[in-house]
Amino acid sequence: MKNVFSVFLVLLSVLGVSAQEFQSPNGAFKMSFSLGNDGTPMYQLFLNNKEVIKKSKLGLELQKDKKSLLNDFKVVDTKQSTFNETWQTVWGEETKIQNHYNELMVKLKQNETDREIIVRFRLFNEGLGFRYEFPEQKNLIYFVIKEERTEFAMTGNHTAFWIPGDYDTQEYDYTESKLSEIRSLFKSAVSENASQKQFSDTGVQTSLMMKSADGIYINIHEAALINYSCMHLNLDDKNFVFQSHLTPDAKGNKGHIQAPSVSPWRTIIVSKDAREVLASRMTLNLNEPCKIENTSWIKPVKYVGVWWEMITGKSSWAYTEDFPAIQLGVTDYSKAKQSAKHAANTKHVKEYIDFAALHGFDGVLVEGWNEGWEDWFGHEKDYVFDFISAYPDFDVKGIHEYAKSKGIKMIMHHETSGATRNYERHLDKAFQFMKDNGYDAVKTGYVGNILPLGEHHYSQSILNHYQYVTEKAAEYKIMVNAHEAVRPTGICRTYPNMIGNEAARGTEFQAFGGSKANHTTVLPFTRLMGGPMDYTPGIFEMDIAKLNPGNNSHCNTTIANQLGLYVVMYSPLQMAADLPENYNRFLDAFQFIKDVPVDWSTSKYLEAEPGYYITTARKDKNSNNWFVGNVNGLNKRTSTISLDFLEKGKKYEATIYADANDAHYKTNPQAYKITKQKVTSKTKLQLTTAAGGGYGISIVEVK
Amino acid sequence: MKNVFSVFLVLLSVLGVSAQEFQSPNGAFKMSFSLGNDGTPMYQLFLNNKEVIKKSKLGLELQKDKKSLLNDFKVVDTKQSTFNETWQTVWGEETKIQNHYNELMVKLKQNETDREIIVRFRLFNEGLGFRYEFPEQKNLIYFVIKEERTEFAMTGNHTAFWIPGDYDTQEYDYTESKLSEIRSLFKSAVSENASQKQFSDTGVQTSLMMKSADGIYINIHEAALINYSCMHLNLDDKNFVFQSHLTPDAKGNKGHIQAPSVSPWRTIIVSKDAREVLASRMTLNLNEPCKIENTSWIKPVKYVGVWWEMITGKSSWAYTEDFPAIQLGVTDYSKAKQSAKHAANTKHVKEYIDFAALHGFDGVLVEGWNEGWEDWFGHEKDYVFDFISAYPDFDVKGIHEYAKSKGIKMIMHHETSGATRNYERHLDKAFQFMKDNGYDAVKTGYVGNILPLGEHHYSQSILNHYQYVTEKAAEYKIMVNAHEAVRPTGICRTYPNMIGNEAARGTEFQAFGGSKANHTTVLPFTRLMGGPMDYTPGIFEMDIAKLNPGNNSHCNTTIANQLGLYVVMYSPLQMAADLPENYNRFLDAFQFIKDVPVDWSTSKYLEAEPGYYITTARKDKNSNNWFVGNVNGLNKRTSTISLDFLEKGKKYEATIYADANDAHYKTNPQAYKITKQKVTSKTKLQLTTAAGGGYGISIVEVK
Repeated sequence: MKNVFSVFLVLLSVLGVSAQEFQSPNGAFKMSFSLGNDGTPMYQLFLNNKEVIKKSKLGLELQKDKKSLLNDFKVVDTKQSTFNETWQTVWGEETKIQNHYNELMVKLKQNETDREIIVRFRLFNEGLGFRYEFPEQKNLIYFVIKEERTEFAMTGNHTAFWIPGDYDTQEYDYTESKLSEIRSLFKSAVSENASQKQFSDTGVQTSLMMKSADGIYINIHEAALINYSCMHLNLDDKNFVFQSHLTPDAKGNKGHIQAPSVSPWRTIIVSKDAREVLASRMTLNLNEPCKIENTSWIKPVKYVGVWWEMITGKSSWAYTEDFPAIQLGVTDYSKAKQSAKHAANTKHVKEYIDFAALHGFDGVLVEGWNEGWEDWFGHEKDYVFDFISAYPDFDVKGIHEYAKSKGIKMIMHHETSGATRNYERHLDKAFQFMKDNGYDAVKTGYVGNILPLGEHHYSQSILNHYQYVTEKAAEYKIMVNAHEAVRPTGICRTYPNMIGNEAARGTEFQAFGGSKANHTTVLPFTRLMGGPMDYTPGIFEMDIAKLNPGNNSHCNTTIANQLGLYVVMYSPLQMAADLPENYNRFLDAFQFIKDVPVDWSTSKYLEAEPGYYITTARKDKNSNNWFVGNVNGLNKRTSTISLDFLEKGKKYEATIYADANDAHYKTNPQAYKITKQKVTSKTKLQLTTAAGGGYGISIVEVK
Repeated sequence: MKNVFSVFLVLLSVLGVSAQEFQSPNGAFKMSFSLGNDGTPMYQLFLNNKEVIKKSKLGLELQKDKKSLLNDFKVVDTKQSTFNETWQTVWGEETKIQNHYNELMVKLKQNETDREIIVRFRLFNEGLGFRYEFPEQKNLIYFVIKEERTEFAMTGNHTAFWIPGDYDTQEYDYTESKLSEIRSLFKSAVSENASQKQFSDTGVQTSLMMKSADGIYINIHEAALINYSCMHLNLDDKNFVFQSHLTPDAKGNKGHIQAPSVSPWRTIIVSKDAREVLASRMTLNLNEPCKIENTSWIKPVKYVGVWWEMITGKSSWAYTEDFPAIQLGVTDYSKAKQSAKHAANTKHVKEYIDFAALHGFDGVLVEGWNEGWEDWFGHEKDYVFDFISAYPDFDVKGIHEYAKSKGIKMIMHHETSGATRNYERHLDKAFQFMKDNGYDAVKTGYVGNILPLGEHHYSQSILNHYQYVTEKAAEYKIMVNAHEAVRPTGICRTYPNMIGNEAARGTEFQAFGGSKANHTTVLPFTRLMGGPMDYTPGIFEMDIAKLNPGNNSHCNTTIANQLGLYVVMYSPLQMAADLPENYNRFLDAFQFIKDVPVDWSTSKYLEAEPGYYITTARKDKNSNNWFVGNVNGLNKRTSTISLDFLEKGKKYEATIYADANDAHYKTNPQAYKITKQKVTSKTKLQLTTAAGGGYGISIVEVK
């Protein structure tokens, strides 16, 4: 009977009628799986019966094997199923998330090799996820990926919001262009970074946000990127077909796999409404449920820090200017002259603690507290930090006690300088040192070239390192906020102690020459599709020269835009990044930062157009209060929103922090107006947003 | 005044009269340092006024810098000094070692760059050591070595005992040839290995042993190889000039240096008498004194082990044949069928413990005790072992208690499969596990390609790993015996817990097809110049098919040769490698292995010719007894020795374990004769040694 069935399937395949079709739960999406004449697996996606992904090939090219997993396949089994459950978040944009999809499992056997792979497709109401699975079998155990050959064939010359594909940085400004224009714009889209390596003039990163000529929004990314290499997209710009391009290891290979194993999910979110892209929880849903049993110690954090003053160049991380280079354990800091610029000194840190306590923040981050900053960067130095030796002017115990007495949590900083082996060697002691001194959260950093030499920030082996740190931190009940690590793919569902990530161009670049004024109208459609970002908003002084006369950068936003970011750019970890002295100049505006929560029970996306504007409303997890944030792009615009998300019949007072009429990110960024008004679910608001502007609204129930 | 001095030196240099000369303490050696016309540093070495190293260039080619450290130098300072001290060994061939040398320090400044380097030369009575030093300075802090360009210019077409230069293995058979013949013999000198990468058809490894046509023995090696890449020698076979060739990292670079720093010492031992090469302690003397304060826990060890039966293929490391591949923590061994070949089972281990206790051994090594051996090799598998999870049939606690009750120490085995990151991740827990279960010593292994990918067994970063393991082990008071790690360079003086190393073709190759019958007449002149080897002698059954019918290998020595190895091949860690059942067949010969010590108060080299024969006498550290060992090469030979090293006036009984007259390594390897005779310091002995033969003599004082 088994043989008869196989013959039947082979016949179907030969006859070209082997296509498998299935639909999303709401029927909007239809996906078709088929085999080409040479047995190449392919998929095709339709939204409301209109093709949105053309027939696209699936498969993997192998390095050592004679025959790759590209063709010569027959279908040996298929299975369709439905899944629908609602799960509870530890933190997030919502307390509950529905995970509802239809699934098609296709088991393929390669005729010549007798090898089996599975392609598992899941259709959600907002798009498609699929992955490769390599089941346990005799003929496919260990293999090396030369390249994954997954295609995403576009239906036309879409508009894209893209950054250059790079093995070592994600910190580029977004470029908006037609797909056909990427090649000519590529070089100008690459800006300098501490480590970088592009691979193709049409290579771009995920999450990639696109819009078709007829107004369909398409977002391509990946989910559950564990024990695999990070995927980029390489565009065939004649045919508008993207092909997966994995990050290589030091030997140029793209992944070492041992079956049984699975690839990450490749995700395609498609909608006629950009707001639905923001509302999608597909990335989280395609990750495994939480693996941390007791999550009571994981808490969202609002914080200030000894940081922006170093980023701007006003202060320094380094303790001394005496040494051009140092050796840990050999260099005697007690004999060095303290630099007047060293910010992480006990007195100054206590000022930050006082400020944090006065204004109700949870934590204080301090960078530059530990030995090694004199030559930490650019030397591929192995033993660069030990993560436990404080500079002479940083009193670990005293600061801990002082912070504790004020109800403030200190936030640890572990810059690795990319030296992953050195960090792993010190990890246990570093985490124990944190626990001994009252630190529950750590900001990690991976600035510069990766050690081991030849590896990249996004290669399989280094992703394995980030994952190792996250899991080891969980053992110590430590929350992690990784900077310069790989872009998130929803793993925070499985390991919610990963409360932050950078992995994109953050606010720091406003002090490194500035970012485009519409940058944050793109980020939620790209970087944030995989998880929250430690964007570090809250800059009130846009003229960086005011902090450091030698730095002529300008922060290309208005103050009102900065406030809007606290709602638009969801994160359970939010910084007020500017200096206390700048907040003290604008305490009325600062009030919004003080009031805005960092954890939510639900979120609504009121307006959205990538590159142009986003307006988001969120309900506080611990009250009935709502907060609305808007960020606006390059042109002045009127934002029109309805407050129909408010509970009917209830009364609220809204405090609106908006751009002044003459505000402008470049010429008049500090012009805002604060107004109060009574609102209900029937209220509609019209608010003018400046170029590079925005607004924040707090809506408090009146009882 | 300073300027005048500089000008003076420059003038000297320009005039070509800047040569600096100095002599060894005994006046036998003279070394001359000079600068070429273009400011290239050079040295030249004479023994008894005869040139033994022709004028040879010194310098380093840099990777990133515009100008390398090769020429354009002037001498800015020189200093001569003398050093003479005697230091105490923790273990060794002698209890006390004299460190006596004259030193010439030459400080060079590069005209264009204002960079300073120092070349420090030390002339001992048996040869020359020199190294590069990079002092702290403004213009040379971080640099990357493209290649070290140290030359060793030979005076003629010497005979060499060489193995192919390789970044990943040292386990080749030695080839004896003229330097001019290396190129044509190179390919045939390369045999298969689990990991290997040659770089040149005239590339060879150090320590390289040579003999000139006029009978001068020359040995080139390095000492104190720490935080640098391992040196090979690449031969210009037209001019007989060797140039240093360092092991590259994953990017192809040869070393990342931060000044202040020093290179390893380059060593050249030269003598008219081959025995003086064996007697040299230059390599140890060029290392730093012991850095371990309390060394009372470091003890030489004689051991047996569950090992040879796996090497021969009689038994297996793997617990089961059920799984083609396993995942640690996922694979359920409790459901697997135990292989009948799995040797590391509790019952069998206890038999080894009984045997060890019965015959007075210190320890028992067990390999294959821990989960992961089913697919441990050849897959570049990252999480390959965890070093703490025992197979179901290996009762860690029970074995510990049983061994303890018998006065036996268990010896741990950590095979890393080359996955250095994985080993470091588990190191603390693995060492703690050892201490918790009574293990004081570990045999480590690095079979297969190194992870991180692209690195090599002998690159700077991986040498750093071995060093890290040694130092971490010292923290736990654990002794280390590293296999497949880099060849020793005397670091055991500084870290005497490094009691063993393999780093050459050991006895195991006798079960992998066999080694040349004169192999062990070469090893003491090559591999052992850097420190002791865990050669694992003591094979009594030479026909490997007797153990495993599928293995037709032959151990190419006689039993008497195997006994001689315990004296000739000095090691504080000596194994009796064969199976108990084979020793039980030859208990009279086994008596020598039982009697021979593993620590000595003094050593005498009675006869020596590399490739042909070595006869060594050593005095037990803990008694007045002496032991003599001989290994012989390919031809039957009469060994004539005088026992004049015995204390005058004292009487001794000698037990002589010699080849029978008709013994032959191939045709009659088990033919030995044991005789006893009274001896004194006046006794002379003539002993016939078979092809591939040898002898062992125990000389016990008669009171």
